Amino acid sequence: MAEVTLGAIAGFLGGSFDGDPGRTISGVKPIDEAGESDLTFLSNPKYAGRLATTEAAAVLVARGTEGSSERWIRVDDPYVAFARVVSRWFAAVPGPRGISPLSSIAQTAAIGEGVAIGAFVSIGENVVLGERVTIHPGSVVGDGAVIGDDTLLYANVTVYHGSRIGRRCIVHGGAVIGSDGYGFATEGSTHHKIPQIGIVRIEDDVEIGAGTTIDRATLGETVIGAGTKIDNLVQIAHNVKIGRSCLIVAQVGIAGSTTIGDGSVFGGQAGAAGHLEIGSRVMVAAQSAVMKSFEGPATVAGSPARPIREQMRSEALVRRLPEFVERLRRIEQKTGVGKSTPENSSEGA
Amino acid sequence: MAEVTLGAIAGFLGGSFDGDPGRTISGVKPIDEAGESDLTFLSNPKYAGRLATTEAAAVLVARGTEGSSERWIRVDDPYVAFARVVSRWFAAVPGPRGISPLSSIAQTAAIGEGVAIGAFVSIGENVVLGERVTIHPGSVVGDGAVIGDDTLLYANVTVYHGSRIGRRCIVHGGAVIGSDGYGFATEGSTHHKIPQIGIVRIEDDVEIGAGTTIDRATLGETVIGAGTKIDNLVQIAHNVKIGRSCLIVAQVGIAGSTTIGDGSVFGGQAGAAGHLEIGSRVMVAAQSAVMKSFEGPATVAGSPARPIREQMRSEALVRRLPEFVERLRRIEQKTGVGKSTPENSSEGA
Amino acid sequence: MAEVTLGAIAGFLGGSFDGDPGRTISGVKPIDEAGESDLTFLSNPKYAGRLATTEAAAVLVARGTEGSSERWIRVDDPYVAFARVVSRWFAAVPGPRGISPLSSIAQTAAIGEGVAIGAFVSIGENVVLGERVTIHPGSVVGDGAVIGDDTLLYANVTVYHGSRIGRRCIVHGGAVIGSDGYGFATEGSTHHKIPQIGIVRIEDDVEIGAGTTIDRATLGETVIGAGTKIDNLVQIAHNVKIGRSCLIVAQVGIAGSTTIGDGSVFGGQAGAAGHLEIGSRVMVAAQSAVMKSFEGPATVAGSPARPIREQMRSEALVRRLPEFVERLRRIEQKTGVGKSTPENSSEGA
Repeated sequence: MAEVTLGAIAGFLGGSFDGDPGRTISGVKPIDEAGESDLTFLSNPKYAGRLATTEAAAVLVARGTEGSSERWIRVDDPYVAFARVVSRWFAAVPGPRGISPLSSIAQTAAIGEGVAIGAFVSIGENVVLGERVTIHPGSVVGDGAVIGDDTLLYANVTVYHGSRIGRRCIVHGGAVIGSDGYGFATEGSTHHKIPQIGIVRIEDDVEIGAGTTIDRATLGETVIGAGTKIDNLVQIAHNVKIGRSCLIVAQVGIAGSTTIGDGSVFGGQAGAAGHLEIGSRVMVAAQSAVMKSFEGPATVAGSPARPIREQMRSEALVRRLPEFVERLRRIEQKTGVGKSTPENSSEGA
Repeated sequence: MAEVTLGAIAGFLGGSFDGDPGRTISGVKPIDEAGESDLTFLSNPKYAGRLATTEAAAVLVARGTEGSSERWIRVDDPYVAFARVVSRWFAAVPGPRGISPLSSIAQTAAIGEGVAIGAFVSIGENVVLGERVTIHPGSVVGDGAVIGDDTLLYANVTVYHGSRIGRRCIVHGGAVIGSDGYGFATEGSTHHKIPQIGIVRIEDDVEIGAGTTIDRATLGETVIGAGTKIDNLVQIAHNVKIGRSCLIVAQVGIAGSTTIGDGSVFGGQAGAAGHLEIGSRVMVAAQSAVMKSFEGPATVAGSPARPIREQMRSEALVRRLPEFVERLRRIEQKTGVGKSTPENSSEGA
Repeated sequence: MAEVTLGAIAGFLGGSFDGDPGRTISGVKPIDEAGESDLTFLSNPKYAGRLATTEAAAVLVARGTEGSSERWIRVDDPYVAFARVVSRWFAAVPGPRGISPLSSIAQTAAIGEGVAIGAFVSIGENVVLGERVTIHPGSVVGDGAVIGDDTLLYANVTVYHGSRIGRRCIVHGGAVIGSDGYGFATEGSTHHKIPQIGIVRIEDDVEIGAGTTIDRATLGETVIGAGTKIDNLVQIAHNVKIGRSCLIVAQVGIAGSTTIGDGSVFGGQAGAAGHLEIGSRVMVAAQSAVMKSFEGPATVAGSPARPIREQMRSEALVRRLPEFVERLRRIEQKTGVGKSTPENSSEGA
């Protein structure tokens, strides 16, 4: 467990701090759980009242926060500052050191400096691992795959032959990269497999969640752009191209050959049909189904998805249907229209 | 294959039985597949007619069942009784015996009595395995994880460092426990990773389905309460707290920091947004999207979810829209309102 | 990299070709990426204009295509022909050769001729592997499982004890076959596990996607019919019976005991409730929820699913709600009905 002085933290963050720079903390906790040897942070102004009651040794607060305290460290963005402190001193992830004698590494693989490989990892022919790549136990890297510097594969990851993963990527347990796209040519009742001879290419700084699957292209490449973060149990089909800095939340599915621009966001369990062009900065609400192309920026929702204002107006009108039906009934009563047909006499459902 | 006497079964269950206690059965089958050496059960009264036609050696029936037969064993709950008989005599799951010489176990790991570990299992530093823990081939238990007595991990399970799993739990193949929560602080177009330094804590008697993923907390714990049963391919995000005895059916997703009370049920493919408080005994229909907090007991449905009566009434009214539009048209005809605008003259969609 | 003459390709396909039969190609690419040493194909007439601009050495075209070119090879179905050429010459997947000394194979397992098993594969007691079965690293085959001739398991696949997989099947990375069905008998707040003592049976020529989970039956069998193709992250519950030649797209979930006839198709993220009978050639749109039985042939959509014409009409009417409300308001104005109630005076939502 690290012991860090508040002076070191304030200095690292470029923060303003009037308290005792020699006081140490040994952990980071939420504001209502932090004790006298913990650092905490206030990111959401809704919880400002807790500044008075927290027992934390120090609190990261926004520069403009009203009031003053010897425990405050004023920074530009307390959440980012919290993340930086944790990354710097408290986030060491245990993992393999060196190359396990219980791994299987092909003679033709090129292994960079500082690589760590756990037990029961299999590295195929002609694989290239950059410097400081770390691979946890049970993962499999197929022939000819290339993995960039400082990339981390957790346990039981499967990387198919020929996949290319960039630098500083993180791939979580059970993820599968480069499996065959789902492509068949149907003759009568027989589905002939279309061989999938393309690859997956993942650019730098991508994170891929546990259990997520990314299919290789039929021909060419399935691409995940730099800085994009993908959550757990997401399905990316063959020939999909996702831009840079996108956020793809858990259990999303993107069907084949769809392209997504930079900075777009898919909420959990949303889906997109195949062969669409979804622009940059398109926000898709959770559980929506994108069935046609949208230019960005846009925010869409619903199944099928449409601009969120239309969708919300529509949902509101549906909720008001009982009122509309009652109004219809009153008009019929007054005008005498339809009163003879029995099905109109009751609005019950 | 076990050979068990009907007398032993009736005694074990505390059931009433007038037939030959020395007759043996060697298996358990559905009522219309059972043969003369099988036990079966009648749980659903809809199938009572099959009591006359089944060839089973004996049938577990509810105590109050009308009629009589030398083949009936009367018990309180035939389905529970069936489960108990199968568990007692017919459910032995083959698995590793002893500790495979092909596993990798850190010197610092503490291994309880009667533990069985399969080939190619990796056990990290300072792991604690309770008594009679069984781990099938290919699973990985990260540094510092703790697994309670009698817990069973099937093959290719990934347990990240620091995870805590209780007693008598079952974790199915390919599940991932303790992967990083999906947390980023965005500056411009860069998503900075928020280190996830909390853990996952799974209480006693929990079952976790194949391919399910449960993320570690940012700070603190993601918690699965005692006796909760989670199906396959479920996603539980960071800092979620699920109560005791919940049922979470396949492909459900629960977003970050949401809490769920005891005895709640999520139907398949349902989802819940983050930071919600969902009470005890809240039933969520399949494919619903819970977008706000609900107190229990309650039954909700729809996307977004609302009380199921409202949702069903709304669906019924939507189905009646063609009728309402026709009624509107007849009123317009009679009153002369709107008849000049061409768009009103046809109700086709 | 293969070098193949156009004459050999035309001959293999039974195609008509007037160009230089001795010219060779070394790869297959999409029509707008193909270069002078590539073969390509024109399947969608929408792209016919690219026939003039492609740089490909040769193009597979439909027999009736208007015009002529020395580069064209006329075939019955260009997409099928493309698949056949790729399968024949360009789709070799690297994988294990022979039986890795780093695998663990029970003495009682029966291993057919030509089997290839990668590192860290575990093969249980009494397993039967047919001829030419290939198993990539890290996969686990439980006791008593049977795998037919020419079947391919990619890496980190989990096959539970007793599962039966047919011939010429492909199972992708991380898939789990034979995990326990989700069955509990609830007494008070305790969910007693119903032991799952049935199996999974997968017939010939089935493909199973990455991360897909197929549960074993409570009693009897969960069945996947011959020629059915299942995409990634699909959940098939216990006792489900899927017919022959079905297509089950990514992230679909089929609940327990539901049966599906031959040639049915489930779009991505769709679901079916349990205990349903879904006929042959039933097409289910993406994200739909099938909540009742349907006879085939039929096409259904929506949540809950209904015949697609009804669903589309309903969606169209919902989209027209703003118009209907305006018409209602005009009638009220003219007839004087309801004009005194303030809630009727504004249609805003």
